[in-house]
Amino acid sequence: MAGVIAQAGFGSFVLAVTDAKPLQVHREHWQQEDPTMNESSQQTATASMYARYIACLNRRAWSELGEFVAADVVHNGRMLGVDGYRAMLEGNFRDIPDLYFNADLVVADESHVASRLRFDCTPIGQFMGVPVNGRRVVFYEHAFYTLRAGKIAEVLSVIDKAAVEALMRP
Amino acid sequence: MAGVIAQAGFGSFVLAVTDAKPLQVHREHWQQEDPTMNESSQQTATASMYARYIACLNRRAWSELGEFVAADVVHNGRMLGVDGYRAMLEGNFRDIPDLYFNADLVVADESHVASRLRFDCTPIGQFMGVPVNGRRVVFYEHAFYTLRAGKIAEVLSVIDKAAVEALMRP
Repeated sequence: MAGVIAQAGFGSFVLAVTDAKPLQVHREHWQQEDPTMNESSQQTATASMYARYIACLNRRAWSELGEFVAADVVHNGRMLGVDGYRAMLEGNFRDIPDLYFNADLVVADESHVASRLRFDCTPIGQFMGVPVNGRRVVFYEHAFYTLRAGKIAEVLSVIDKAAVEALMRP
Repeated sequence: MAGVIAQAGFGSFVLAVTDAKPLQVHREHWQQEDPTMNESSQQTATASMYARYIACLNRRAWSELGEFVAADVVHNGRMLGVDGYRAMLEGNFRDIPDLYFNADLVVADESHVASRLRFDCTPIGQFMGVPVNGRRVVFYEHAFYTLRAGKIAEVLSVIDKAAVEALMRP
């Protein structure tokens, strides 16, 4: 979800992080770890990094987030930085305790990833302004990621709010 | 827009095409036309085909649509076929006379295109259930296209309805 929830309808977004430890940043660390990496497979490396980023989110392994997200990451036009990005994600997991990221379709080139993310979850209260209140919703997010030095530097994301609304209709 | 407007909120969608001429289908025609095409640049060919598809939409060159869209194309889970797809697009242009497709960011691999489309337009009436009524709206669509034999066989698309709603708030 990469925090679009907050951006797109969860109202007040709290950027301040009070309990965050300094994030470890291992530049290019992902390349060293990836057995498929070679000079001619940057596209594969990009997709592989993205898969490990998604796994990081699903493990809520916030101390590893800086391995995937640039220190000055921008999300839907807002300069969050990695701490703000982490705060956004932590907020998402508070609002949707069973949040899980499923990348259904990933298209990658050397410096971009586009991902269709499927969510099947039960937001506690409002979701994008829709009073979900603990009911189950299945919806998609379509996100574009621009990479710089192997890390996510910009995220542009749209969530299918219309689908959530349709699910909540009596 | 590839007709998501109809899917996502324009209410009744009319699949029937009464005045459509039979569409010409030139299989692999795009490959012959593309000077950048060679065996090793399928990714480039895919992106190039997509650029010509978008140009086709903006010219409203419906007789050429079958060069880019498969005869059994599926859009957001609905089997429209090329005639239904054309009808959807024609409906979009009726509802939004100044509709214009700007592909801001395109990520392509051998068989997929992901596109962030920017729209700056004035829908006549409701748009995705939002009473726009001739006001200007700027919003994005994030679309994933799966290609088969060089043509668009499936479209999965999300429009940023929340952004349209935000623009219409007093």
